[in-house]
Amino acid sequence: MSFHDRAVFPRGFRCASRNVGLKPEARDLTLFASDVDAAAAAVFTRNQFPGAPITLGRETLKGGVLRAIIANSKVSNVATGARGIENARRMAAAAAAELGTDAGKVLVSSTGVIGVQLPVEKIEAGVRGMAGDLQGDPLVGAEGIMTTDTHPKALSASVGDATITWVAKGSGMIEPNMATMLAYIFTDAALDAATLDRLLRRAVDVSFNMLSVDTDTSTSDTCSIMANGLAGAVDEQAFLDTLVAGCVRMTEILARDGEGAAHLLRVTVTGAATGADARTVAKSLVNSPLIKTMVHGADPNVGRILMAVGKCTDVTINTAATDAWVNGYQVVADGARLEFDDAVVRAALSVENVDLEVSLGAGTESARAYGCDLTHGYIDENAAYYSS
Amino acid sequence: MSFHDRAVFPRGFRCASRNVGLKPEARDLTLFASDVDAAAAAVFTRNQFPGAPITLGRETLKGGVLRAIIANSKVSNVATGARGIENARRMAAAAAAELGTDAGKVLVSSTGVIGVQLPVEKIEAGVRGMAGDLQGDPLVGAEGIMTTDTHPKALSASVGDATITWVAKGSGMIEPNMATMLAYIFTDAALDAATLDRLLRRAVDVSFNMLSVDTDTSTSDTCSIMANGLAGAVDEQAFLDTLVAGCVRMTEILARDGEGAAHLLRVTVTGAATGADARTVAKSLVNSPLIKTMVHGADPNVGRILMAVGKCTDVTINTAATDAWVNGYQVVADGARLEFDDAVVRAALSVENVDLEVSLGAGTESARAYGCDLTHGYIDENAAYYSS
Repeated sequence: MSFHDRAVFPRGFRCASRNVGLKPEARDLTLFASDVDAAAAAVFTRNQFPGAPITLGRETLKGGVLRAIIANSKVSNVATGARGIENARRMAAAAAAELGTDAGKVLVSSTGVIGVQLPVEKIEAGVRGMAGDLQGDPLVGAEGIMTTDTHPKALSASVGDATITWVAKGSGMIEPNMATMLAYIFTDAALDAATLDRLLRRAVDVSFNMLSVDTDTSTSDTCSIMANGLAGAVDEQAFLDTLVAGCVRMTEILARDGEGAAHLLRVTVTGAATGADARTVAKSLVNSPLIKTMVHGADPNVGRILMAVGKCTDVTINTAATDAWVNGYQVVADGARLEFDDAVVRAALSVENVDLEVSLGAGTESARAYGCDLTHGYIDENAAYYSS
Repeated sequence: MSFHDRAVFPRGFRCASRNVGLKPEARDLTLFASDVDAAAAAVFTRNQFPGAPITLGRETLKGGVLRAIIANSKVSNVATGARGIENARRMAAAAAAELGTDAGKVLVSSTGVIGVQLPVEKIEAGVRGMAGDLQGDPLVGAEGIMTTDTHPKALSASVGDATITWVAKGSGMIEPNMATMLAYIFTDAALDAATLDRLLRRAVDVSFNMLSVDTDTSTSDTCSIMANGLAGAVDEQAFLDTLVAGCVRMTEILARDGEGAAHLLRVTVTGAATGADARTVAKSLVNSPLIKTMVHGADPNVGRILMAVGKCTDVTINTAATDAWVNGYQVVADGARLEFDDAVVRAALSVENVDLEVSLGAGTESARAYGCDLTHGYIDENAAYYSS
């Protein structure tokens, strides 16, 4: 499979975005719509203080049918109590009225400041007439959900006669505030809600769930899929393969555009006793400040790899048979650092995409995690926000 | 109890430090010695790739007796295989020969670069004559184990006729390389090894084990206690109280001097269903990059507190009864952000010591964790090292 050179929507999907006054000038409200009802599934943040749109979204997705998605940036509608829930419902109702559908078929997302009430009247006023703006470029929708993302993010690929399209915003902070990942997937393949739910979870487990910019879990994370069936049936395995590939690719795009990031960091762990062990070690490496600063500085300080593996105290590690590579260049063998030419390792760390691989020598399971380096930019974007 | 204005040693303890050529000029080797055998206990890193001195130290401490500690900085002797173990033994033997004791009564510590063999000949040559340098100022020993610490760290306090003295180096990176905490505790109280082990673990659990600068666990962490008995018996509860107070105070000193830190961050969690829940949430807050950057910028972005609590998905939280305070000023009530004057919260965050308190509304257990803010300094110290 390959991704289209420029992302397009599947049959029957369109989007629009506008500035409705939440931000000074930038687009802050996006509408995605299908011409017909679509089977749907979604996964949401596991944070115990989820935003009001998450609470409402869980209820909405029980129906297994979506017609539209309405998403705003700037205010996340989190920690806002009963009034927050009511405001999320009003957003869904406003989008439904504009599109002539039921509020129960509209998924709501909000991303931005936590603990501030949503200016819902601006959204209600602003959404009026957006049905007339609906058009076919997914990047227009992506633009309306950007926060500190440096570019709008959309991908599409074909599966037989069908198309899958991904639109997402990154794990960047919001103005800068709160890492939130929103990822919306659209397809014209005919698949029922239960199948979508099963396939989405498989894809998310190896992609978005293995992404970390800073270990902080947003209260608003949402990944949904809508399938309107206009392209008819597809081969399920081919669909899953493409779904996984697109989710992984979007994960890489989000990681590379993490707050202040200059490098995409991919960590592959092999030789693990269990899949859970592999995921734990991969996440430990991708989240280690000392690994992230090493990648930032292209510094061949690879002893830190063993530190970040070894700090996983509950994982089975064959410490006498642990190996590690930096972009294919072996730096650790049998649990000890190899003698190597610093310049070679420095060069291997100096490229934009840095792959670290670790074999634990303890089994046959593997996992891959995605992240980025830690830079001054991350701190600058997150140390001030009310005042900027 | 109160700490002495200037740290002194208990009866019978002395120390010396020197430059032996591991670093260009700074002191890089420290010797601590007791005039007589001391009952001893220690706790070590749980990292699965411990340094050779840790492996040797676990063996040494089985005897329950120490006469001396030898510690070098610059090279950590980690991931160095069988040769590393042999070099650690040679360090112990060199100190023992200089002091006229057994190598089995010498604790060894090394801190610095991982994966580089120790220049043990320089240490063997350098330790000769150090017995003649032994003197009574604990700060002299503290100076020899400094890495990126900005000042040497020692404390002492009285318990009846006895004295307890703490000498430590911080969770700063090494040149900059690897966070390592070394903490040596000395007392002239008469306590046996089993009692020391029990009391030390109780003190460490609420102090050093609740300290985190960056979530990265050193391969060399060591905390030992030596009791030479020269002051006779003490009241055990009074001793424990003072031991805990000193370990907590030293933890605060280490946190405040974390890599690049400008603020000490203390997080107190109350109202937890279990002690483990309280510790998990306290660590989540103290390690959250978004909390750390908020403190760095004195930014009243307190919704992040609920994010960092809620991301502890396995902890029992009464989300409708969760409250939070910043230096005593309440910012969250019943799981929602209060309306507050930004300037007041900004002022509360602008002091050197920032206390965050969260009540989970789920029980009566509590815990406190210690850390620091995240600044450019942390990145600068850790993004380059071979070249600096």
